[in-house]
Amino acid sequence: MGYSTKHKLVTSGLKLPVRLLLGPGPSNLHPRVNQMLSSSMVGYTDQQYYKVMDETMELMRYLFQTDNHFTIPISGAGTAAMETCVANLIEPGDNVVCLVAGYFSDRIYQMAVRYNGNITKVQKPWGTWFDLQEIKTALETHKPKLLTLVFGETSTGVRQSMEGIGELCRQHDCLLMVDTVAALGGVPFYCDDWKVDACYTGGQKCLSGPPGISPLTFSNRATKKIAARKTPVANWYLDANLLGQYWCPEFNFADGSIISPQPLRKYHHTTPANLIYSLRESLVLLVEEGLDNVWNRHKQAAFDFYKGLEDLKLSPVIRDVYDSADEKGGRLFSLTTVSIPEGIDGKNIMKFLLDNYGIEIAGGLGDYAGKVWRVGLMGHNANHGNVLLLLAALKDALTANGYKC
Amino acid sequence: MGYSTKHKLVTSGLKLPVRLLLGPGPSNLHPRVNQMLSSSMVGYTDQQYYKVMDETMELMRYLFQTDNHFTIPISGAGTAAMETCVANLIEPGDNVVCLVAGYFSDRIYQMAVRYNGNITKVQKPWGTWFDLQEIKTALETHKPKLLTLVFGETSTGVRQSMEGIGELCRQHDCLLMVDTVAALGGVPFYCDDWKVDACYTGGQKCLSGPPGISPLTFSNRATKKIAARKTPVANWYLDANLLGQYWCPEFNFADGSIISPQPLRKYHHTTPANLIYSLRESLVLLVEEGLDNVWNRHKQAAFDFYKGLEDLKLSPVIRDVYDSADEKGGRLFSLTTVSIPEGIDGKNIMKFLLDNYGIEIAGGLGDYAGKVWRVGLMGHNANHGNVLLLLAALKDALTANGYKC
Repeated sequence: MGYSTKHKLVTSGLKLPVRLLLGPGPSNLHPRVNQMLSSSMVGYTDQQYYKVMDETMELMRYLFQTDNHFTIPISGAGTAAMETCVANLIEPGDNVVCLVAGYFSDRIYQMAVRYNGNITKVQKPWGTWFDLQEIKTALETHKPKLLTLVFGETSTGVRQSMEGIGELCRQHDCLLMVDTVAALGGVPFYCDDWKVDACYTGGQKCLSGPPGISPLTFSNRATKKIAARKTPVANWYLDANLLGQYWCPEFNFADGSIISPQPLRKYHHTTPANLIYSLRESLVLLVEEGLDNVWNRHKQAAFDFYKGLEDLKLSPVIRDVYDSADEKGGRLFSLTTVSIPEGIDGKNIMKFLLDNYGIEIAGGLGDYAGKVWRVGLMGHNANHGNVLLLLAALKDALTANGYKC
Repeated sequence: MGYSTKHKLVTSGLKLPVRLLLGPGPSNLHPRVNQMLSSSMVGYTDQQYYKVMDETMELMRYLFQTDNHFTIPISGAGTAAMETCVANLIEPGDNVVCLVAGYFSDRIYQMAVRYNGNITKVQKPWGTWFDLQEIKTALETHKPKLLTLVFGETSTGVRQSMEGIGELCRQHDCLLMVDTVAALGGVPFYCDDWKVDACYTGGQKCLSGPPGISPLTFSNRATKKIAARKTPVANWYLDANLLGQYWCPEFNFADGSIISPQPLRKYHHTTPANLIYSLRESLVLLVEEGLDNVWNRHKQAAFDFYKGLEDLKLSPVIRDVYDSADEKGGRLFSLTTVSIPEGIDGKNIMKFLLDNYGIEIAGGLGDYAGKVWRVGLMGHNANHGNVLLLLAALKDALTANGYKC
């Protein structure tokens, strides 16, 4: 009985290796973003903190390319932002269609079935995406109130074409939820132009920020649906109503109007201030460089990498690649899946890169396990120098493993 | 159509004031903890990261004073850890009793009712706590499978007596869930000795760590209940089964046994590495000082503060105070509610402290709004110097507002 020293682990200081993170995320933090993590802590009711919050929200609107007033960071991983959409937008009995062609689109489905809707999975093989006719058929057949899809599928390296989907959803009185975790801030995405109603990303990929904070935006159509719910959101931590009372109490969910003067902010949970400081800095970096330039840099790095793969006689899994058409489906510039050549053990190459160069790339998940490498050129890391280094290191690794390239 | 600069906010660098945070949390980060936030990022499958995870889990066992194998950090605020307990431990139809005598015990209730159990709120006035007979009656009357209570109530400054509750719950085949957010790492708490089945805290209070990461532990009785669920956990992000497959895949939920060799860890979400580095450092600091010494330091700071309040003719709201009895209910050493004297506007005093000294204390929530100040002497901040400074600043503020002290 009483105080015990049984688990009093005496350990050394934190000894972490320096890695170049060229996998599917996290990517390396930009030095300025990293530094901001240790800015001085203030309380969650501090006026100075409110200013940081407001700025971060406005900067996220730039990131999402949206006018949505309800644009806030979720205090958790990208998966928590995903669940924020699912928990708030699905009511018991609602018809929902989940378009699934990869690990993360399936995750949305796995999550959605826990919220007591009538969830239909419309599935295609990994590495493919959905065309407009398929989506139209799904909307007509299942009459969903919510359609979910992944724009940049981290598991397959596919970019889903967004052309016409939003319009179609509106015609069918359906909300459109889009996962942009592996893409936003790296690949052109226009939340409003594409009529997306619920969208989110993670801080740790194309934003070069820390994991644990995840931008999310809801259209007024989405918040109206939330305001009209007959049942409480089956998740307290991620309840948009309660989050809104802290982040933007001036926003009327029901009609999208702005209440003036702003009502008092109501405490919900202690937000991760350090992560929000850093997220803000990530977004300031986007403003400084210009989102359009950032997109071009990612595209350029991707094309440099594609060219180098060819030289190494390696092939990206996704064949369709477009130089500029924002709305076409195909290869995702920020994350490339590369086929592991026959006779090569993918893990050996990954180990070689890590041991000899401190470079992390990742293997495949699910259907792609053992078959692909996943290479991310995201955020700060998406530059020509890293591409050259990775290609040279890859060549070394492949040669050491008996592959002729 | 296309790229828009409408929300391209041009802003200055982050300009944050330096605060001494003596409210109910967050408290100031210990400098070493703060520094660890910006340690180098590694991937979530990196062997070096796994080592950090394992060490952090073992250090948390020391913090909780538990042998529980399932002891992990939740990637979110303390409220997310609260919801992890509620979501995993309540199945539809389960009888649950929530003991409520403050804002956070009521939050557990508000959350629990979203999970389709039969939830009974047993309520007492703010500022009180429950005696064993009241708890016995509740168990006998409602036959709950889960009893929830708050050990250190941040809204009232009450410490709930833990004497005999765990034993009583076991006799009634009921799981015991305890919130220690405002107390753990500051006030003696013995998870195993007190037979607690589910327990959590936040990183940002007595641990002097960052908000956004929250230690949680489940007893084998709790994981057995989770393993026996007939319905999936109605929350994907906080599903203990999935979290366990990443954090401790060697742990068998059903019988508490350890599977050897350890199965591969299965990815669930990108964990907030920076926060985990910092949490680990917070816990290393506890080991260095010794948890027993840390508890004493908090108690000493509290008693110094009580004495100073007397000199200022101010009164803590909670009258019962015990010098050493770990198991008695009464005043919470880490968080003191102070009655605002008649004729004084509490907000003016708070503003004076903030403007003139950069000291943050907080006002009351709910039933205590406008009636109390909340003063936290938590973690690194719980020392004699801060007490002296706060008392002197308070005297200045009160005098400036016409109060004779």
